[in-house]
Amino acid sequence: MTIAAPLSLYRTRVKPEWVDYNNHLNDGYYLVIFSLGGVDAFMDLIGMSDAERRATKTTIYTLEAHVNYLREVKLDEEVEIRTQLIGFDQKRFQLYLTMHTARLGDEIAAASEFMLVNIDTSGEPRSAPFRPEVAAKLAEIMEAHKALPLPAYSGRTIALPQKK
Amino acid sequence: MTIAAPLSLYRTRVKPEWVDYNNHLNDGYYLVIFSLGGVDAFMDLIGMSDAERRATKTTIYTLEAHVNYLREVKLDEEVEIRTQLIGFDQKRFQLYLTMHTARLGDEIAAASEFMLVNIDTSGEPRSAPFRPEVAAKLAEIMEAHKALPLPAYSGRTIALPQKK
Repeated sequence: MTIAAPLSLYRTRVKPEWVDYNNHLNDGYYLVIFSLGGVDAFMDLIGMSDAERRATKTTIYTLEAHVNYLREVKLDEEVEIRTQLIGFDQKRFQLYLTMHTARLGDEIAAASEFMLVNIDTSGEPRSAPFRPEVAAKLAEIMEAHKALPLPAYSGRTIALPQKK
Repeated sequence: MTIAAPLSLYRTRVKPEWVDYNNHLNDGYYLVIFSLGGVDAFMDLIGMSDAERRATKTTIYTLEAHVNYLREVKLDEEVEIRTQLIGFDQKRFQLYLTMHTARLGDEIAAASEFMLVNIDTSGEPRSAPFRPEVAAKLAEIMEAHKALPLPAYSGRTIALPQKK
């Protein structure tokens, strides 16, 4: 099976409970879409769906997330999330996600980055290496994504512009 | 009037629509609470409430946000958001927010950082200097917050640990 680079695993319409009085998507809900859509869909792809997590007594915790807001998105617009695997190690993986709409074309509405960690839930939850099948799937996706350029909004730090 | 350092401007209970099947607060909704609670309450404080923004044809856009997830938070728990002004310039300000619960005591549940920018909406929206009253209020808060130490999770970059 060919793995798309980047992946496109999730589309949704902007819901009324996600917008402000101007009918623009609220900043907090960008992350809800990136997480519940983009990250969850990626977890399904690597064999960490809800059912698989329960069956194998494993789960994924989010350690850290970042969002860059570039354009406004409106009530009822359809947004598409594209996902790039930036890297992984024995127990962590780093995802880069972008939000797209038909109206904006090639311009991205927002960019997001996540660091996630595999958790063993058989006892007190603790970080643990991925199951071999999950590690193999991550390696397969990494192989497909390694030629993608490092995205513009990866590795950002929040800081005021330096005074000249 | 004395300005608290940090400020405590917002409390809420974790709502059923914010949690996963384990009744833990979902990662995306941490940012919803930080934004709709912490940032909006701070905007009210500096004279940028909803009504004031409409009356003065100004608004605030979020440019960038970051979250560090440290502890799980549960359905119906009360969370408190504390807010520290890290810095500001003519048109931007940088906020650091922490999430607290009675159960966790001094340990923070999550930390978040926001970069925001003042927008003139009298024509096509564009960034513009703060109104003088808003700039004065930011200066007053900065004076109260400048002695606070730079927080542990300010200025973070998402990256895998380097291999030894």
